[in-house]
Amino acid sequence: MQALAIDVGGTKLAAAVVSDSGRILGRHQVPTPRSDDAATVFGAVCQAADGALAAAGIEVGGDDDVRAATVSGPPERLGLPESLRSVGGGGTLAGIGVATAGPLDARAGTVSPVNIAAWRDFPLRDRLAQRYTLPVRMFGDAVAVTVAEHWLGAARGLGNVLGMVVSTGVGGGLILGGRVVPGAGGNAGHIGHVSIDPAGPLCACGGVGCLEAVASGTSIARWAAEHTSDRKVPLRTATAVAEAARAGDEIALAAMRRAAEAIGMAVAGAVTLLDLDKVVIGGGVAHAFDLLAQPMDAAYRRYAALGYAARPRISAAELGGDAGILGAAAVVLRPDDYWPRNV
Amino acid sequence: MQALAIDVGGTKLAAAVVSDSGRILGRHQVPTPRSDDAATVFGAVCQAADGALAAAGIEVGGDDDVRAATVSGPPERLGLPESLRSVGGGGTLAGIGVATAGPLDARAGTVSPVNIAAWRDFPLRDRLAQRYTLPVRMFGDAVAVTVAEHWLGAARGLGNVLGMVVSTGVGGGLILGGRVVPGAGGNAGHIGHVSIDPAGPLCACGGVGCLEAVASGTSIARWAAEHTSDRKVPLRTATAVAEAARAGDEIALAAMRRAAEAIGMAVAGAVTLLDLDKVVIGGGVAHAFDLLAQPMDAAYRRYAALGYAARPRISAAELGGDAGILGAAAVVLRPDDYWPRNV
Repeated sequence: MQALAIDVGGTKLAAAVVSDSGRILGRHQVPTPRSDDAATVFGAVCQAADGALAAAGIEVGGDDDVRAATVSGPPERLGLPESLRSVGGGGTLAGIGVATAGPLDARAGTVSPVNIAAWRDFPLRDRLAQRYTLPVRMFGDAVAVTVAEHWLGAARGLGNVLGMVVSTGVGGGLILGGRVVPGAGGNAGHIGHVSIDPAGPLCACGGVGCLEAVASGTSIARWAAEHTSDRKVPLRTATAVAEAARAGDEIALAAMRRAAEAIGMAVAGAVTLLDLDKVVIGGGVAHAFDLLAQPMDAAYRRYAALGYAARPRISAAELGGDAGILGAAAVVLRPDDYWPRNV
Repeated sequence: MQALAIDVGGTKLAAAVVSDSGRILGRHQVPTPRSDDAATVFGAVCQAADGALAAAGIEVGGDDDVRAATVSGPPERLGLPESLRSVGGGGTLAGIGVATAGPLDARAGTVSPVNIAAWRDFPLRDRLAQRYTLPVRMFGDAVAVTVAEHWLGAARGLGNVLGMVVSTGVGGGLILGGRVVPGAGGNAGHIGHVSIDPAGPLCACGGVGCLEAVASGTSIARWAAEHTSDRKVPLRTATAVAEAARAGDEIALAAMRRAAEAIGMAVAGAVTLLDLDKVVIGGGVAHAFDLLAQPMDAAYRRYAALGYAARPRISAAELGGDAGILGAAAVVLRPDDYWPRNV
């Protein structure tokens, strides 16, 4: 069994065909178009998907494995793309998994990614189902990273896990008792908007002291810029801040420490509340795990003191840029664990 | 089907026979002995249990319903108490549910309640199983209150619920997707030891800024006492503080407001992280819900701003003092929902 996995982000659109052991059989990615036209962006998604199918040896002609699994009419009538008429390697495409930047409405199947202005309530799920005549499961990219790390990465075999994506924003996903927890409306895992400080900065969401307002890449860079004046190379991004910190810059070090302490405190609260086995941190900021780990664990110890929670248990994600597509594949290939019934 | 439910607390030991519709068929309670002798305290538990069985019409002699369900030898050889030889009303005792003050070791079946000094790692589960030859399920009292409120109280019919007990300490329990969430070691729900303020007071657990260190009855009374000097009636308990607040005392009002704001912030974080339908607050401090509700909801709004989480959703518990025994009964009578497999 195989899945077509799609990762929709503000920078790139990635797709892959993934086997049920998590092997990537073919992949393709394209830059996310800077366009105001919804159809242009959808066309780019299809270009990535078609490229991945082709790279996996799923080509024009051949047998009807794919079609047989999901449809009963002839492919041309159903609008099946040429590329879906056969599956290389004898596998069967079970469906399409989509990990997408949010917000999304899981029930309606629509997406409105902050960084894809052309899509507001865009019916991505149904458009993909229509084009590929395959069932489509769509969910948030931070949950996808959590799922992927649980399936194949740093949280393999564990029952109770919080996955976090710390990059432009701070997102997350939860696995409890070995299964994805969706919450009432599919939004569980949003640790970026848990407040960690009643005297903290105002957050873009309207809240006060949210983790994201302190620890996101954007927030790290903003804080560093606010605390420096004359400097040849400005600290415009979290990557620049991390580089400066490694070079010994005091302000940059303080900016990284401040973010790490906020993450440590938020994670301490989540582990205390949920009795977690592990917390896995991915996303761009996790590339600075070397700078974050020590102050993060120190803060964790300060705020989690009860016996079962006292030991720090924060790991860097292992799957890097592939986590999104692997998580997207997992909801198709392992629905019992990763596709909660009420979403 | 019926359950023998036992609620072990530092002040009283309560027991009841509960029907599968949640009706209390008989009850009895005794004060928790102020004794250093473990056997004396256990004897008092049995006295409460025997009294409840007798009150439910489960008396000496009669048919063997109870015994037949669980044992095969004659009752005298198995050490069955006289009282268990028949069940009134034709029901069958399915087992014993025990809600206990913590800490407890759910796997070992032992308890070490802070306020019952005679019991340190006391094997309560096995001692009860031995005396009554019935299966015993034992868990924390705050989880029991959560379960009871979900089964019969303020959270009836909801999928995703945090129950809190705000009294001497602050405990809690979690139901997600309609089922109790135990976490890795059965400790999920401990919201009292989630830190809500990096500049907050040191907590008895060793942490900093824990909700319990601000909002427990003990913390409310301590803060009020620290902020008053000459006063005829000292504010020694949270009840006294609440009464003084109702009479318009400024310090007492401030003490209640401070606790309410801390609860509102912690609950905002939990709803944001877990996408909860409702949070139910029980325990002694909940008797002051009239004083807490407005500042609690205001704080909630300040710290939960994302769409799905923005509406305050905090209710007072409905079951009062019976919540412990009803929750204890529920784990016997409705194990699929309330008795997680890995505890």
